[in-house]
Amino acid sequence: MATNRTVRLAQRPTGLPSPDTWAIADEAAPVAGPGEVLVQVDYISLDPAMRGWINAGRSYIEPVEVGAVMRAGAVGTVLASHDPAFQAGDAVEGMFGVQRLAAVGPKATGMHMIDLGLAPAPTWLGVLGMPGMTAYFGLLDVGKLSSGETVVVSAASGAVGALVGQIAKLKGAHVIGLAGGPDKCAYVTGTLGFDACIDYKAGDIRKALAAAAPGGIDIYFDNVGGEILEAAMALLRRKARVVLCGAIVGYNDPTKMVAPRNYMNLLVQRARMEGFVVFDYADRFAAAQHDIAGWIKAGQVHPREDIQAGIDRFPEVLNMLYAGTNFGKLVLKL
Amino acid sequence: MATNRTVRLAQRPTGLPSPDTWAIADEAAPVAGPGEVLVQVDYISLDPAMRGWINAGRSYIEPVEVGAVMRAGAVGTVLASHDPAFQAGDAVEGMFGVQRLAAVGPKATGMHMIDLGLAPAPTWLGVLGMPGMTAYFGLLDVGKLSSGETVVVSAASGAVGALVGQIAKLKGAHVIGLAGGPDKCAYVTGTLGFDACIDYKAGDIRKALAAAAPGGIDIYFDNVGGEILEAAMALLRRKARVVLCGAIVGYNDPTKMVAPRNYMNLLVQRARMEGFVVFDYADRFAAAQHDIAGWIKAGQVHPREDIQAGIDRFPEVLNMLYAGTNFGKLVLKL
Repeated sequence: MATNRTVRLAQRPTGLPSPDTWAIADEAAPVAGPGEVLVQVDYISLDPAMRGWINAGRSYIEPVEVGAVMRAGAVGTVLASHDPAFQAGDAVEGMFGVQRLAAVGPKATGMHMIDLGLAPAPTWLGVLGMPGMTAYFGLLDVGKLSSGETVVVSAASGAVGALVGQIAKLKGAHVIGLAGGPDKCAYVTGTLGFDACIDYKAGDIRKALAAAAPGGIDIYFDNVGGEILEAAMALLRRKARVVLCGAIVGYNDPTKMVAPRNYMNLLVQRARMEGFVVFDYADRFAAAQHDIAGWIKAGQVHPREDIQAGIDRFPEVLNMLYAGTNFGKLVLKL
Repeated sequence: MATNRTVRLAQRPTGLPSPDTWAIADEAAPVAGPGEVLVQVDYISLDPAMRGWINAGRSYIEPVEVGAVMRAGAVGTVLASHDPAFQAGDAVEGMFGVQRLAAVGPKATGMHMIDLGLAPAPTWLGVLGMPGMTAYFGLLDVGKLSSGETVVVSAASGAVGALVGQIAKLKGAHVIGLAGGPDKCAYVTGTLGFDACIDYKAGDIRKALAAAAPGGIDIYFDNVGGEILEAAMALLRRKARVVLCGAIVGYNDPTKMVAPRNYMNLLVQRARMEGFVVFDYADRFAAAQHDIAGWIKAGQVHPREDIQAGIDRFPEVLNMLYAGTNFGKLVLKL
């Protein structure tokens, strides 16, 4: 290939990203320097957190600079390698960015081999990738789930939420999801096996949650923030845990980034609210992937990816996340 | 004594309690029934939490009913006992209420002996009482202080805050207090030995806090909520802890009970916000009192009580807490 198609950040958006946010172009193909590896990028992961990465300013990770290739987790195939740990033909995962070809330092991109015999490539961006790791460590390490507890998870048909609920079920919890619309809810209680699902677009969330969790909530795994967070916090049980994973309502509209006014219920219920960043658990990813692959084989975890195709569709496909129109882990085949 | 002077809840207030909130009267002296003890109440404790106790509705403790004697922690002297564990003349502490005489069941009021040789009676309502226990377990058990960390505490000249800072100092922390006015700040850095004190009535709290804690905050011990909580949350360090002890800004005016809009900084910093209720630690109070009494003897903890006198002044003295005009642990001598 003589050229490399890339998606670069053209300008920082206010609110929802638009086509103007991005610059899509053909460039000269990159060449792997000393110690580097040339990767053909096959699939990229689309994640709600991407909206935060293109803001200026301090967060848990450096912002993507204007003019830079957009950051993305990806799986690909090694084309050429100047690192003895990798060979042409290897299947690999790493932060390769939204581009067809990437000449990368394995360390800088967290590049590692993946076993396509264990699961197909898109699944390595789903339940075996960052969303899977986020669900696993957020629920078990931060949330410290015990059998018999009541777990509530928002964005329950999404990549993280679906796995949170499935792991909670197989660990013996009573699990309630929140999702948008009857189709997603049917999937959550049907295929995923949650005990209940609340359609947050239909009716009073507080009342529905109180009815579904009459004894209160032990763990609320929050992917969305806003009104749902506040509703869940009103129902915390003694020693409850609120796991802060994301706040998708506020990513494009900071005015919706309201804090839960009833946060002092944490005091009344001797409860805690705790945030985490999945990269901190990198040295335990392999063990978690081993567990999750086992659960897939046992039929206890059902991966689902929403695979879209074409690098030029990146701007439009990314925004599906914020409109909630994807169904399953959103992946773009380049 | 043929009569008992009592302060009862006449009606639930909206906002700040007023004289109409209370009914003060002489009643027939109570008689200790089987298993009960008759106590002369010598000092009562005035606590910010009292405002919550007179609201209707669920909290960490049952509300005081309209018509009931106002709940209060107190120290007193046993006058007569039908419980073999107590004898006339014993010095005792318990939830005896705002009244001159109390005929009480020892269990229902958490009644226990106190050693006036260790500290005078008012101190048993201060650093050896609920405020002391709150500071001790909140900082050490919930906050999990380590030597060398930076601790920020609001209401630093108050009963809880003063002890939080003094314990943090003797455990090797860098300690910053917030207090209202130059006199209180001078006391906080002078007598109490904090490293710095910010007068929250003078100037920009965020800027002052950022200047005092340039490396960020490991523990924020929150007694007040509102703007100061938000300012502290903006400066959390990695793995920081926000200990929720109270939210005095909202007790009388729920519109000030705003939640920290920047709560997602808990995620960025992998931090937690956790509430607690001191009564949960009752089985360890004696050990904590032993520690604190030792620190008083060693000159590392300086108790300070603001002792007011006269049961009829209860309505006015209680409101000193919300105006911030007390200086030290507020106690009423009956």
